Amino acid sequence: MSYETLTWSVDDDGVATLTLHRPEQLNAFDLVMARELLQVFTVDAHDDAVRAVVVTGAGRAFCAGMDLSAEGNVFGLDESLDVTPEELRERYDQEPYQDGLRDTGGKVTLAIHALPKPVIAAINGAAVGIGATMTLAMDLRLASTRARVGFVFGRLGIVPEACSSWFLPRIVGVQQALEWVYSADVLTAEQALEGRLLRSVHEPDDLLPAAQELARSFVKDRSPVALALAKQLVYRNSAAPEPLDAHLSDTLAMFHTSIGDGKEGVAAFKEKRTPVFTSRASEVPRVFPR
Amino acid sequence: MSYETLTWSVDDDGVATLTLHRPEQLNAFDLVMARELLQVFTVDAHDDAVRAVVVTGAGRAFCAGMDLSAEGNVFGLDESLDVTPEELRERYDQEPYQDGLRDTGGKVTLAIHALPKPVIAAINGAAVGIGATMTLAMDLRLASTRARVGFVFGRLGIVPEACSSWFLPRIVGVQQALEWVYSADVLTAEQALEGRLLRSVHEPDDLLPAAQELARSFVKDRSPVALALAKQLVYRNSAAPEPLDAHLSDTLAMFHTSIGDGKEGVAAFKEKRTPVFTSRASEVPRVFPR
Amino acid sequence: MSYETLTWSVDDDGVATLTLHRPEQLNAFDLVMARELLQVFTVDAHDDAVRAVVVTGAGRAFCAGMDLSAEGNVFGLDESLDVTPEELRERYDQEPYQDGLRDTGGKVTLAIHALPKPVIAAINGAAVGIGATMTLAMDLRLASTRARVGFVFGRLGIVPEACSSWFLPRIVGVQQALEWVYSADVLTAEQALEGRLLRSVHEPDDLLPAAQELARSFVKDRSPVALALAKQLVYRNSAAPEPLDAHLSDTLAMFHTSIGDGKEGVAAFKEKRTPVFTSRASEVPRVFPR
Repeated sequence: MSYETLTWSVDDDGVATLTLHRPEQLNAFDLVMARELLQVFTVDAHDDAVRAVVVTGAGRAFCAGMDLSAEGNVFGLDESLDVTPEELRERYDQEPYQDGLRDTGGKVTLAIHALPKPVIAAINGAAVGIGATMTLAMDLRLASTRARVGFVFGRLGIVPEACSSWFLPRIVGVQQALEWVYSADVLTAEQALEGRLLRSVHEPDDLLPAAQELARSFVKDRSPVALALAKQLVYRNSAAPEPLDAHLSDTLAMFHTSIGDGKEGVAAFKEKRTPVFTSRASEVPRVFPR
Repeated sequence: MSYETLTWSVDDDGVATLTLHRPEQLNAFDLVMARELLQVFTVDAHDDAVRAVVVTGAGRAFCAGMDLSAEGNVFGLDESLDVTPEELRERYDQEPYQDGLRDTGGKVTLAIHALPKPVIAAINGAAVGIGATMTLAMDLRLASTRARVGFVFGRLGIVPEACSSWFLPRIVGVQQALEWVYSADVLTAEQALEGRLLRSVHEPDDLLPAAQELARSFVKDRSPVALALAKQLVYRNSAAPEPLDAHLSDTLAMFHTSIGDGKEGVAAFKEKRTPVFTSRASEVPRVFPR
Repeated sequence: MSYETLTWSVDDDGVATLTLHRPEQLNAFDLVMARELLQVFTVDAHDDAVRAVVVTGAGRAFCAGMDLSAEGNVFGLDESLDVTPEELRERYDQEPYQDGLRDTGGKVTLAIHALPKPVIAAINGAAVGIGATMTLAMDLRLASTRARVGFVFGRLGIVPEACSSWFLPRIVGVQQALEWVYSADVLTAEQALEGRLLRSVHEPDDLLPAAQELARSFVKDRSPVALALAKQLVYRNSAAPEPLDAHLSDTLAMFHTSIGDGKEGVAAFKEKRTPVFTSRASEVPRVFPR
């Protein structure tokens, strides 16, 4: 599959590199890029040969935000939309992928979040607007010293989107989240690191190799199903009402892995050898209530 | 409107300064102050001329806590209260503002929290008990080097109130929250900063100007409705079960702003001029289910 | 009561010290230890003479994880378990303590979490697997410079258990939690401190005294019921949907303490004397809905 706005490649260790690739436009996000990102995260990245995904930008930016040079309602919403919050949820339940009825950035971040594999942002330059919020749905954020991150929506009279209000306070706490959203400032890499948005900051040339190496360390000799379940457990239970919720889901996850890859894992540990896991991320058992 | 225990003023940029003003009593919180704070946060501060609120204390304290010199049950609760948790919720649903049936500090912090505008604490001195917990419902906390913050309830045989157990772990994490609540110690400004309760610490004379300047930077040339929705999104979705909840609410918030102030914001951005927003915080659309 | 795998003692201040005691096996966790920990945390530690619990390990380890030398399914799960998430919750509601149907580590951490008293981990050496996750249900974690902490499940093809996915993101945020779970690395004390998992790091000989002294400072001249309710409020409301939930529960907690130990606390404060509290942790009133 070839893309207009992206490049996508997978190495022998299963580490995929996804590059936002509209360098002349500073990789600005438009509806073509949105569709292609959805395709990658709902189809390509689900291939069992893919074990982890690193996302970066071509040229000097990561993603300069929504392409405001487009005509019409650039946010992809139907201007005649007229629903209550209750009706929107109901319509979502009936047809989750309706165009014009849902924030475009959010369709993409929900797909990133649902991928049962580690996803790492390698923020090589400016990440602004949807360029910033899309990284929040990725599990870890590494950045170059040249990175700039801005939740700048307030300057345009709009709001942070793409589920960012779910992720940001869980990453940096509510006080820091509110300050960045209210100020709408563009942060340096150092400020974003100090505020705990970034996992680490690297020299520009070291960034992508560091992100790929980190991804590799997560998946090499690891069980795809155990990784997938661990990702689900951390996110879902970070928002669960009680420890008991975690207990019931991790019991089922432990059960499924203990009769699956866990048998090989324990045997290899006892025999002091490298385990050979055979599970597939495309076959993750269900451990949460519907 | 004039107050016994407070002063209230609004400058030309819409930055209101609310000063707890019982300096002889170190601004101790009594039932008059509680009523007056409720009046400010449910009426005065909702005026569209008010864009943000800074809260500080007169004299050397911010607020020394509940005024224990009062007679009777100083906590404002009816001593014959005899309800189960289920009944209390039911009675709340029927009549939210009953006296004697609800923690007085909590009535005030719920009103602060519900204000659809930034609220900033400028903690100029001792903030103890309700003086500490009331700041948790404010969005950011700046402090003077002379500030002291104490969740001292445990020393009196009582519990942290005013919804503090909802806010504190979201600001500083559960481990730090539990240590401060268990120890009931009075923290220095430095300790509170290190523990991430405070956004920043300032020289005493610089504190109030810094808080007002920060407030001004949040609201100058910003959309009142976009700010109001951003505040709601961050708090509500910090506690929502799934990213999907954020997606459905931020879709509606983006829809309403994109056909409102967002049109002007995008136009001004393209034309490289300052936007002129016309929305009113008193007319924030509903984006969350009831 | 005497134990095979533990030692348990209570000093005159009510500070209990629980020592994992299989030093030859690096205090590895087996089904005997699981049963004995359950006994301690559901029975012994509930004695009103116990005011706080410090947990440490004998010898050079804290707990080296699940004892993988055991035969059969070392995770204590019945290999014929075949239930949906919905059925598991239903079975739990009917009979919470069924063997073989629930993660063993989770039974222990739920019991630790439910203890209405401060629990402090004094991590003296390696804390790996269940040795790491059991500390997450304790309220604070102190460690020796020799401590090592590893959420190593991924190396064995299994998942983090014992409700760790509920606790870990609330302590360190989701980004740090995911990195540690994905990497499955063994962290030094310094790394775990930097990542905010640990409250503090101590010289080996100073660790246990520091943990016991901290526990003592939490309970000396403090109300057992106020402490118990404060613990419940912080954990439960850290996961509650809205500040209103906290308001309704802290109103009831304030009511019960204000007509109980709070009367003595306020009187002692006014009279500048040490309070004498008489409540019992075994008689904590209910402040949350069922």
